[in-house]
Amino acid sequence: MTTLRDIALIAGVSGATVSNVLRNRGFVGAETSARVREVAQRLGYRPNPMAQALANGRAPTIAMVFSDLANPFYSMFALEAERAARRRDHFLLVCHAAKPDGTLDTAYLGAVAGRLSGGVLILGSDLGRADLLSAVPNGVPTVLAMWEDAADHPSLPCVTLDFREAGRLAADHLLALGHRRIAVLAGARGDRVSHGARLEGATARLREAGVLGGATLEEDSIGGGHRAAMRLLEAEPRPTAILATNDLLGIGAIQAAGERGLAVPRELSVVGITDIWLAAEMRPALTTVDIDTRRIADASVNALLDLIAEPDALARDALRIVGRPSLVRRASTAQAP
Amino acid sequence: MTTLRDIALIAGVSGATVSNVLRNRGFVGAETSARVREVAQRLGYRPNPMAQALANGRAPTIAMVFSDLANPFYSMFALEAERAARRRDHFLLVCHAAKPDGTLDTAYLGAVAGRLSGGVLILGSDLGRADLLSAVPNGVPTVLAMWEDAADHPSLPCVTLDFREAGRLAADHLLALGHRRIAVLAGARGDRVSHGARLEGATARLREAGVLGGATLEEDSIGGGHRAAMRLLEAEPRPTAILATNDLLGIGAIQAAGERGLAVPRELSVVGITDIWLAAEMRPALTTVDIDTRRIADASVNALLDLIAEPDALARDALRIVGRPSLVRRASTAQAP
Repeated sequence: MTTLRDIALIAGVSGATVSNVLRNRGFVGAETSARVREVAQRLGYRPNPMAQALANGRAPTIAMVFSDLANPFYSMFALEAERAARRRDHFLLVCHAAKPDGTLDTAYLGAVAGRLSGGVLILGSDLGRADLLSAVPNGVPTVLAMWEDAADHPSLPCVTLDFREAGRLAADHLLALGHRRIAVLAGARGDRVSHGARLEGATARLREAGVLGGATLEEDSIGGGHRAAMRLLEAEPRPTAILATNDLLGIGAIQAAGERGLAVPRELSVVGITDIWLAAEMRPALTTVDIDTRRIADASVNALLDLIAEPDALARDALRIVGRPSLVRRASTAQAP
Repeated sequence: MTTLRDIALIAGVSGATVSNVLRNRGFVGAETSARVREVAQRLGYRPNPMAQALANGRAPTIAMVFSDLANPFYSMFALEAERAARRRDHFLLVCHAAKPDGTLDTAYLGAVAGRLSGGVLILGSDLGRADLLSAVPNGVPTVLAMWEDAADHPSLPCVTLDFREAGRLAADHLLALGHRRIAVLAGARGDRVSHGARLEGATARLREAGVLGGATLEEDSIGGGHRAAMRLLEAEPRPTAILATNDLLGIGAIQAAGERGLAVPRELSVVGITDIWLAAEMRPALTTVDIDTRRIADASVNALLDLIAEPDALARDALRIVGRPSLVRRASTAQAP
């Protein structure tokens, strides 16, 4: 790779002179300038955007911090975030910064935040609040995306959606189909509910309709949904519908129904929330609430890049609610039997 | 963020002096040196690893180039690659460099390769050979990972596995269970077979056993596997087993069996290849050939970092075959009916 130093050596000038010529700065005579340009071209010199950005105090990268890239939601979000960053000439560093116990790896974050990257985008749904605030170095542009409870987000600029509304829509759909025995299945990490706002939205709507709905907590995965649904489907009388606060749980519930010999949707309806790509690929395809991941990824990346360009672009407690959740009706829900 | 310039201004010395003191280089008097260190500490200066790396001609990042991060295999690989990079103090840039027509976005790759990143890791299974070789700028450390046909890889250092052996193992398993009517389902992009080596390994083994097996080509996705299996299961006599060259296809085949009212594995066995996380989460869980993604990701990242440190560490046509594929028996295969 050709460097300024190579050009300087061959053109017989100083590195500073080469830099001035190639950046159109300072005073360099016409003849010297022409010689430097000729050498640069001959050696195939390409300017180094990272070095230039660092000279201006910024790297053209943003770091996306997440807990599990193998979770299909995070990989979908990363894909969209990378596209959004690219539209503004930035690149995406992926940082799996969660430690096995669910806390943030502060040292790792410190090494990347504001140094290797111009800013940090934290996908926050699985992370604790205190942990979050202490992990990001002061003065580093940071945006929190997908925080579950918009009404109570940590003191960081936050881009998210109305998860309560998403829960309400899922409940509404089952009620409209005539279901009254509805089991609610909510994601949790240990005893901590991961999907509190969705759960509140759903159960509030069910109570309005006079349907009594407690909730079952389970690990947010297909396996977790399967385990919980195997138990729920033993109850007498059996629920006619399961509302899952996430698609992975819903997919697990459909699989459990298959094992119990129950036909979905004829004997059991299942609705999820998120609309990960798997929801459409399953058979029966999962009815779910689309949270418009692409728009949230776009808005999060744009908010972060605005903040990097102008540190006062967003207040520390700024909140942006993006898009509107919408029901995507597929094959896993039908009229109550 | 404190810069060298801030320290220089406050300590009343030049930027070069600050740099020399903090990097223990050059000749600076003891008193000046102490003053610079004191100011640096007081202002909370943290060295910028990216700037330091660039001063040495390298960035502590590698770029992972892939065609679709939402594909669960790529996101699993990215997760492992990030962990492997981190063990050697590097960060991972994710670059979705495939254009919609499947060719590489050369401009995008040129902007990142060797500039923002010290090297490039290309996940090659979906990419064309000519395209690959022209897309990576000369002199940029590059490693090709997961190339399908080890015996015929493009002229780039290549880390992959013996995909023929993976295909052979899948066929072996079905033969050992007594299956003779085995349909082979292979991933393709348009008319081009994506999984040629696996397909060859599987069909060679079937022919050895006197089982005639043509193959059905389909888009490598759950939906593709579902479509193809719906057709295959109409044949008379019906196949008793489906060998899919990838797990997504196998998962789609299981779903098709469910829709046709066939019990898996009692009436139909299905085996895949890869062992993505979904394979274990499905019901019935998919029997598959584990290709040891973690070891390949580790070896690929290590090969690339070796190449960055020492450009002659690997010959341009170097080939590393990593790990051994192994059968993971789950619930989707059983004795032939």
